[in-house]
Amino acid sequence: MSAPQEETVKSNGLMSILAPIQEDLKAVSTVIDDVMKTPSLKVRPMLDQVRRYRGKMLRPAFCILAGRCFKEVDRDHHHLGAIVELIHTATLVHDDILDRADKRRREETVNLTWGNHAAVLLGDFLFATAFGLSSNLEDPLASRYLAWISGVVCQGEIMQIIETGNLDLQEVDYMEIIEKKTAYLFAASARVGAEYVDAPRESVDALADYGMRLGTAFQIIDDCLDLVGDEERVGKTLGTDVRQGKVTLPVIHFLRTAPDAETARLRELLSGGQGDNFLDEIRALLIGNGSLAFARDRATPLAEEAVEKVATLPESSARDSFTELALYTLSRNR
Amino acid sequence: MSAPQEETVKSNGLMSILAPIQEDLKAVSTVIDDVMKTPSLKVRPMLDQVRRYRGKMLRPAFCILAGRCFKEVDRDHHHLGAIVELIHTATLVHDDILDRADKRRREETVNLTWGNHAAVLLGDFLFATAFGLSSNLEDPLASRYLAWISGVVCQGEIMQIIETGNLDLQEVDYMEIIEKKTAYLFAASARVGAEYVDAPRESVDALADYGMRLGTAFQIIDDCLDLVGDEERVGKTLGTDVRQGKVTLPVIHFLRTAPDAETARLRELLSGGQGDNFLDEIRALLIGNGSLAFARDRATPLAEEAVEKVATLPESSARDSFTELALYTLSRNR
Repeated sequence: MSAPQEETVKSNGLMSILAPIQEDLKAVSTVIDDVMKTPSLKVRPMLDQVRRYRGKMLRPAFCILAGRCFKEVDRDHHHLGAIVELIHTATLVHDDILDRADKRRREETVNLTWGNHAAVLLGDFLFATAFGLSSNLEDPLASRYLAWISGVVCQGEIMQIIETGNLDLQEVDYMEIIEKKTAYLFAASARVGAEYVDAPRESVDALADYGMRLGTAFQIIDDCLDLVGDEERVGKTLGTDVRQGKVTLPVIHFLRTAPDAETARLRELLSGGQGDNFLDEIRALLIGNGSLAFARDRATPLAEEAVEKVATLPESSARDSFTELALYTLSRNR
Repeated sequence: MSAPQEETVKSNGLMSILAPIQEDLKAVSTVIDDVMKTPSLKVRPMLDQVRRYRGKMLRPAFCILAGRCFKEVDRDHHHLGAIVELIHTATLVHDDILDRADKRRREETVNLTWGNHAAVLLGDFLFATAFGLSSNLEDPLASRYLAWISGVVCQGEIMQIIETGNLDLQEVDYMEIIEKKTAYLFAASARVGAEYVDAPRESVDALADYGMRLGTAFQIIDDCLDLVGDEERVGKTLGTDVRQGKVTLPVIHFLRTAPDAETARLRELLSGGQGDNFLDEIRALLIGNGSLAFARDRATPLAEEAVEKVATLPESSARDSFTELALYTLSRNR
């Protein structure tokens, strides 16, 4: 049984949604490649590996689409896109260490190839590179804002680590964590993208609200996919959340609503014995209790509110792309 | 036998050298404390622990003294000092993970108390905080420069990790590593401190050269202290470099100059068997061959050149402090 949205919502693939801004996204990639041309030859192979992490480029897409809701975008937006993508990539490199992950976008992770130590430092280098680019922005406010957002992302991740293994984590705390670690960067991407074309204040806020809500929905679905995705399609090791004691929404719902005997069994599974059928048994419990469906259903109104926010903007193909991205987020299976 | 400089060079203690700028250094601490007042209560205890890392504050001192070579310094310099100290602190937090260190300034390290995962993220948060402060600077050039320097520091650390366990590391590569991971930040601290008082170009360059040379000397001595320091006085776990396979100047000299039987023994010690007398035996070998003395002797001309650089500046008590700091660096035993 899969979540109901998958059957009912028709969504275009991400490739086709982002097709109109492909040239801009390529320009973002070029900015990143240029800025990573480090003088130190020894660091180069690591950076080449990180290049292959570049996946959906959703955050740069938010920057560019937000700008395009009002006018053509230019070099500034490619820089903004590169900054948010680099911040995101730095957190991925560090996340993979924390998750002891060995696959990312079907490639070996940096920590697997080069070791955790090198991966910590490479993440630091990516942060420094992002801030270097950011300090080159003409608008110092954007630069300040992006640094502040990076701090928020780190705080969200720290809270997540503190709550690792806490099986009594409440939904409200889970929501705060995913807003900080994920949604704020989506919101910031849309906000700076709109600010850089001098969009009206209400439109900037609407786009930031869109980013906040869709970013939250995106993370809820991401957490579901970690449990029930197809490893080949998702492109990374599945089940890392439950293996690491990271409590996500389906688990919170299950522990709150399932019969005592079943919650006791899940607590047991999450607290220790992780045999061969560990993930299969957890999946069966969560799906059987409707906890996966509950989590996906929590994402739906968030995506709907996001769509309502951008509906207040003037009509444009970029605005339509935002609407399609909301549908894509709910229906994605990787 | 200790290195010869310790007997011959008379140096004031660091406290007395920095006494004239104590108020400025306190103001730097206040800036850091203010900026770390995070809204997330759960992150607070970690930040409190990191506050206790605040040690010599040498990098902020470089900022302030460089400014004071020309005029009174103000709020800008306290911000600059906070930025370089935060960048340094972030690298310390990450270094302690990599070194598996459990003591820092006589306190438990963050990684020991909260785990490696939290320490990775806390370091990231400190970087983000530094860049947030930096993006508030009036001069965007300083902000760009400090971001670039942070990238250089990371590259130095990455090179060091790549060379871990390479017993054939050459002196020239070691020098490049310590310049990048340590000296550049000292140089940058002095440079921005001087630039912020609009010092003449030659003076700015002289101060940056001072920072580069003294920073390099400082790291050479630091690496010696890791081998032969007094754990209580140095305030951190000793012998971590050799335990982790980090090859420093005394080891490079030894492997280049000692008799074959002895180099074979050191290679054996560094490659595997680390018994109870591991550090004592390495110390005896390095001291017996004069390799510790060689390393300290390499630091001396660097400190002397540093002093010559600041001798070109107009006379001032801040300039005298720089000269005293050079003597302190050579004679320090913690």
